[in-house]
Amino acid sequence: MKLESWIEIPENCDFPLENLPYGIAKLSNEKTVAVTRIGDTIIDLQSLSALNVFSDLKIANADIFNQPVLNNFIELGKDLHVKVRERLQEIFGIGSNNTELTEKIKQYSLYAADGVKMLMPVKVTDYTDFYSSIEHATNVGKMFRDPANALLPNWKHLPVGYHGRASSIVVSGSEIHRPNGQTMPQGAEKPVFGPSKMFDFELEMAFVVSKTTQLGESVKASEAEDYIFGFLLFNDLSARDIQSWEYVPLGPFLSKNFGSVVSPWIVTLEALEPFRVKGPIQEPEVLPYLKTSGNRNFDINLEVLIQPEHGEENLVCSSNFRYMYWNICQQLAHHTVNGCNITTGDLYASGTISGPEPGSYGSMLELTWRGTKPIQLSDGSERKFIHDHDTIIIRGYSEKNGLRIGFGECVVKVKPAREL
Amino acid sequence: MKLESWIEIPENCDFPLENLPYGIAKLSNEKTVAVTRIGDTIIDLQSLSALNVFSDLKIANADIFNQPVLNNFIELGKDLHVKVRERLQEIFGIGSNNTELTEKIKQYSLYAADGVKMLMPVKVTDYTDFYSSIEHATNVGKMFRDPANALLPNWKHLPVGYHGRASSIVVSGSEIHRPNGQTMPQGAEKPVFGPSKMFDFELEMAFVVSKTTQLGESVKASEAEDYIFGFLLFNDLSARDIQSWEYVPLGPFLSKNFGSVVSPWIVTLEALEPFRVKGPIQEPEVLPYLKTSGNRNFDINLEVLIQPEHGEENLVCSSNFRYMYWNICQQLAHHTVNGCNITTGDLYASGTISGPEPGSYGSMLELTWRGTKPIQLSDGSERKFIHDHDTIIIRGYSEKNGLRIGFGECVVKVKPAREL
Repeated sequence: MKLESWIEIPENCDFPLENLPYGIAKLSNEKTVAVTRIGDTIIDLQSLSALNVFSDLKIANADIFNQPVLNNFIELGKDLHVKVRERLQEIFGIGSNNTELTEKIKQYSLYAADGVKMLMPVKVTDYTDFYSSIEHATNVGKMFRDPANALLPNWKHLPVGYHGRASSIVVSGSEIHRPNGQTMPQGAEKPVFGPSKMFDFELEMAFVVSKTTQLGESVKASEAEDYIFGFLLFNDLSARDIQSWEYVPLGPFLSKNFGSVVSPWIVTLEALEPFRVKGPIQEPEVLPYLKTSGNRNFDINLEVLIQPEHGEENLVCSSNFRYMYWNICQQLAHHTVNGCNITTGDLYASGTISGPEPGSYGSMLELTWRGTKPIQLSDGSERKFIHDHDTIIIRGYSEKNGLRIGFGECVVKVKPAREL
Repeated sequence: MKLESWIEIPENCDFPLENLPYGIAKLSNEKTVAVTRIGDTIIDLQSLSALNVFSDLKIANADIFNQPVLNNFIELGKDLHVKVRERLQEIFGIGSNNTELTEKIKQYSLYAADGVKMLMPVKVTDYTDFYSSIEHATNVGKMFRDPANALLPNWKHLPVGYHGRASSIVVSGSEIHRPNGQTMPQGAEKPVFGPSKMFDFELEMAFVVSKTTQLGESVKASEAEDYIFGFLLFNDLSARDIQSWEYVPLGPFLSKNFGSVVSPWIVTLEALEPFRVKGPIQEPEVLPYLKTSGNRNFDINLEVLIQPEHGEENLVCSSNFRYMYWNICQQLAHHTVNGCNITTGDLYASGTISGPEPGSYGSMLELTWRGTKPIQLSDGSERKFIHDHDTIIIRGYSEKNGLRIGFGECVVKVKPAREL
């Protein structure tokens, strides 16, 4: 049964009372605080705290919501997150309307979404990018290596991943310049320098870790979800021409670290609970430390749209997070099986989420098959890769039995390369 | 002419008055503060600050040395670092002995090095590992790929590098467990799980960045040294059997992120000024953004020793930082040419520093040629790779005209793998 709130929730809205995602906002009063959202209303959690909404929950830090990032709140742990969630559902539930408290909340704590600037929700401590979609890895293997042996021998035995750059992860709404870099054009004898000609997106999801471990500790796959706070939309921008020249033998570097983008909202595991699904069958069988049971994948519809400057949005990809071959428990168990320590605020991205159909491929590289099959946009132009002034929009939501839990948007506009 | 101090400086000591490295120490009074060192004496900089030694330098933060890490001090910038250095050389110079100030310093600010616990000197914000020794890259290429084409096509055109794990970088004196992990034994049909059988060190240096840039900005090679605070010794521990199975196509991951080790002392660029040397000739010519002039390499003698439990130290490698093909200015210019932003506290490691002679190879992989030529230790045992309970010691120092500037040690003891 759907929960009802005294805050208006438009139809098909990503943010019903069952969602309650967390973010950081600069409010119209210039204060930077932790917030949640119901419908088109942003809720100042610091102000709720000042109204003693959480005072019985024994949160030691009175300023837990008066922070530039969510890391300290995330560090509080799942028990407290669940209590805060329940409390929010209680006070914003239809039954709590017109009490003395809710009148004060209406006066002090609510802001229209379109007057609020959403900021980076977490300080990213370390960032890892996995490569966990079998369709994506197969497509890339076909294009760059051997179509008959597209998947490398290790791929089905471990969730391949690599460390990425934490400093250059920015929030939705940012503008990012096309990177300059070194490439080796086909047939050239020596590399050239200039703006990337193959600017791409990668449709991904990322999870945020909620506990800190010591060096030497490992997180068991069966316990991994206890360490995970929630999910974000993630756009792993990539310069394919820089990547193909630089990446052997140590992996992608400047082709990725010029910028990645996250949605402003972190949707908790609790909110996504109704949308659990089984993942693909893993054959050959994985090693014992990677075994998981139960529904460890999530049914989240994902879309990528390209919007030329002054033009309209063009849907170029419809995928789903459920396609992931490796699940988040396996990713975290693998990452820590050697004793690698994790920190509250770490971000772990999925890798490009491609589905089985061409329309579900999560990058221009795959959608246009390395530029050989350009995409037609509604304004008559075509795209092999992303053009300057294009805006890339990722949207994501789960939907089942009339309940929709969404992530909002992860948006980035591409600016021309800078003069050096 | 050598500077003389009223603090005793033993012969062949790494820490004359010309060095003045920075570190973080837990003193015998349990306080954690920023320190420097002369001879075998640790100097509490916070206490000097309280004695108004720096009061005319206009350091806004009175607690700049009363910190758990050096990041805030490093952020102050080179002009101030030079002034602090000059002030320290003045008050600890032989001419300042027996003043009222120095009597107070003797009373309140000096600690014997062996009673002080050195801590991690910086909070590492992001960590990158380069691959900039041509001898190392060639050796690895010969072993793992094609002896006739050992260097990959990109290697001489750009300083190959990859992002590493910041969370698992620890200070000298730490113990690190042999990592468990997945490997594919030769001839096996499927991977196995267990403790790494090819535990290795990598002899490296790392530099710490002293400025923060915005996303989209680039650092020119000609200006890169303005962004660099100083150097540390760095041991990039590596599990070779995990690495060879996992590393395609996205690079090293669990084979590296179980732990890396830094020396407690950061030696500044100013202290290393007398030891500048030219780097190797770069042929083919590099692209304009990578061109540097002047002496951008540093003549730093480097040694690696293995000490079995209850045994003596065995020198297994003598190398030199001057061998680096790519210099630090090229590394930082390359890293940021695409707009990747840097942060004060970032660590950039050189990659394994191998020289031209077999005795100068900076890893067991190369020294024993993948285990085919074991090293004999003085106790009669042999090593293909590192054994449990072995201690690995890196030492580094520059020496010229009677002046020796050293880094002290970077030490790590290897513990058996944990039971999972």
